Amino acid sequence: MNLRIPGPTPLPPEVREALQTQMINHRGRVFGQIIGEVTEGLKHFFQTENDLLILTGSGTGVMEAAIVNTLSPGEKVLSVSIGNFGDRFASMAAKFGVDVTKLQIPAGHAAQADAVAQALDADPGITTVLVTHNETSTGTTNPLESIARVVKQRGKLLIVDGISSVGSIDLKTDEWGCDVVLSGSQKGWMVPPGLAFASVSPFAWERHAQAKLPRVYWDFSDAKRYLEHGETPWTPAVSIFFGLQVALRMMREEGREEIFARHGRVAQRCRDRAVEMGLKLFADPHHASNTVTAFYTPEGMDSRPLANMLEDEYDTVIALGQGAYTNTSLRIGHLGWVDEHDIDLTMDSLEKVLSRATAKG
Amino acid sequence: MNLRIPGPTPLPPEVREALQTQMINHRGRVFGQIIGEVTEGLKHFFQTENDLLILTGSGTGVMEAAIVNTLSPGEKVLSVSIGNFGDRFASMAAKFGVDVTKLQIPAGHAAQADAVAQALDADPGITTVLVTHNETSTGTTNPLESIARVVKQRGKLLIVDGISSVGSIDLKTDEWGCDVVLSGSQKGWMVPPGLAFASVSPFAWERHAQAKLPRVYWDFSDAKRYLEHGETPWTPAVSIFFGLQVALRMMREEGREEIFARHGRVAQRCRDRAVEMGLKLFADPHHASNTVTAFYTPEGMDSRPLANMLEDEYDTVIALGQGAYTNTSLRIGHLGWVDEHDIDLTMDSLEKVLSRATAKG
Repeated sequence: MNLRIPGPTPLPPEVREALQTQMINHRGRVFGQIIGEVTEGLKHFFQTENDLLILTGSGTGVMEAAIVNTLSPGEKVLSVSIGNFGDRFASMAAKFGVDVTKLQIPAGHAAQADAVAQALDADPGITTVLVTHNETSTGTTNPLESIARVVKQRGKLLIVDGISSVGSIDLKTDEWGCDVVLSGSQKGWMVPPGLAFASVSPFAWERHAQAKLPRVYWDFSDAKRYLEHGETPWTPAVSIFFGLQVALRMMREEGREEIFARHGRVAQRCRDRAVEMGLKLFADPHHASNTVTAFYTPEGMDSRPLANMLEDEYDTVIALGQGAYTNTSLRIGHLGWVDEHDIDLTMDSLEKVLSRATAKG
Repeated sequence: MNLRIPGPTPLPPEVREALQTQMINHRGRVFGQIIGEVTEGLKHFFQTENDLLILTGSGTGVMEAAIVNTLSPGEKVLSVSIGNFGDRFASMAAKFGVDVTKLQIPAGHAAQADAVAQALDADPGITTVLVTHNETSTGTTNPLESIARVVKQRGKLLIVDGISSVGSIDLKTDEWGCDVVLSGSQKGWMVPPGLAFASVSPFAWERHAQAKLPRVYWDFSDAKRYLEHGETPWTPAVSIFFGLQVALRMMREEGREEIFARHGRVAQRCRDRAVEMGLKLFADPHHASNTVTAFYTPEGMDSRPLANMLEDEYDTVIALGQGAYTNTSLRIGHLGWVDEHDIDLTMDSLEKVLSRATAKG
């Protein structure tokens, strides 16, 4: 199957082999070595010297973790949303009693640093900014470096949903001053879903010490304390660790900058092919994502039958749009284990499906 | 390796094979079929017609889920603890602002229904009872049927940690009136950690509708709503689903009662061998667990060097004790993929280690 959704992403054979490793004691020495190696590998791709914690859960789980570990009920937060996952971050924080001001950017556009600065200056009581680096629902990447600059100039805590970017798109955690950065195993990491990652800066730890939201399962302090002994507080998704160990070795071998460059090339190919086929891209071209491309379906065509035809007849799986654009847009994931050939295969099939659908229409 | 800890448990070859299946779309038709089949399989072993929800997380995660989905801050709860995992349930509820009364039973003993009834009658404001079915830290099983009877007679909500019992030890969810029953994939289910299960009765749903604790990731309503379309609200641990599908087919083939009987035989063999070797069992013999056996180390011997010797020289991994008994007790897991031969292998090796340690001492 040609699986081209923005996660779960396809597994290389080496990772699949590792996944079927027999279980071990998660409180034993072998697991301690694995979590040590994997944590160092993740830090390299997160470009950070901060603590890096591995939790068992999905990307949404680690978003919840970031909120409950750093915030208190009633605390004022600016949530920058450029799509569905930004909306989720904002509504989740609100559900936990955080006082959320939302900076809503129209779908397909990125947030600009000026707008973030303005929103922060309008309410000096805001302590924290939640921002999506790469918005999977629209295929748009925020200019995080410039956004981080205005957030840090104002001394706010910066929490970044980097779930579909870290390891695939350049995100300089320490250089840009991102306090908490999140990712999930099923994205650029080439392993199945089940693990989620959070880097935590010294400033985030200070906030954590004062944060009043209740937490047990997601508690960062427990995760840090156990990591010092090569363990996790609760039983972790051991097989995903086995896969991640192998995947990170492969990523190290390819090289961080090489991986970013490959994602850039592949994404460009995807966009070029889409435009050649007369499709209208969803994202502002200046901020088009290197891990997912969203485009509108041709006038009058519904996304679902197109996706089904692609799957049934060409064994190629792409994702429907999200939210208000579920029926009128489609999304192609190109992160993790992907090269130009995969994109050509996908776009060739899509082209055939579209021409047949047009002929039928 | 002979892995004899109370989870993660060893994986049969069929399950390992399934774990390396290539990723699929978690919002596609194939995943919908898998979650449908697996949910029905779990309900059979939970012995319930209630809703059965599958969450991505550990056993501790689903304990947190049970609390935040059914309780409100300040609500009065009776937490029955016979060991570390009972303590965890109580302290977790307290952390979320629940008003916890603890019925603490000395380690190695089971809770009696009379004591539970008395504790409930002492404070009619209590709405809910938290109880561990099988206490992994001490190898003790509570007489859940009789406890459930006194809880239900008083109209309280009954939340059962069945993490290391369901699927291995008889737990009649519906017949006994257990409102919420929890389990985790790495226990009797013969698959890796990463998924956790909760059955939810109509009475629990009523409580859920009024429960005020904030929740997003663990929300039962979202899980139920998505399950109706063959999905989960957040990206699930897909590979563990692949393994669970195969494991549940194997369990169905063996048969529920047969599995319970096998666990009974294997546990008896483990206890008999331990007693023959002159070891003192931890649990009250009337309530000894069929999934884990805990015993004291011989006078003056520390648990850790014994466990290390067993691992290094006999490739056999057993667990240390927990909490106050970490250094003075050891635990053998016998749940999931286990038979008498595995126990003989374990106890033969343990016997050699003990005799050498005695000779040295």
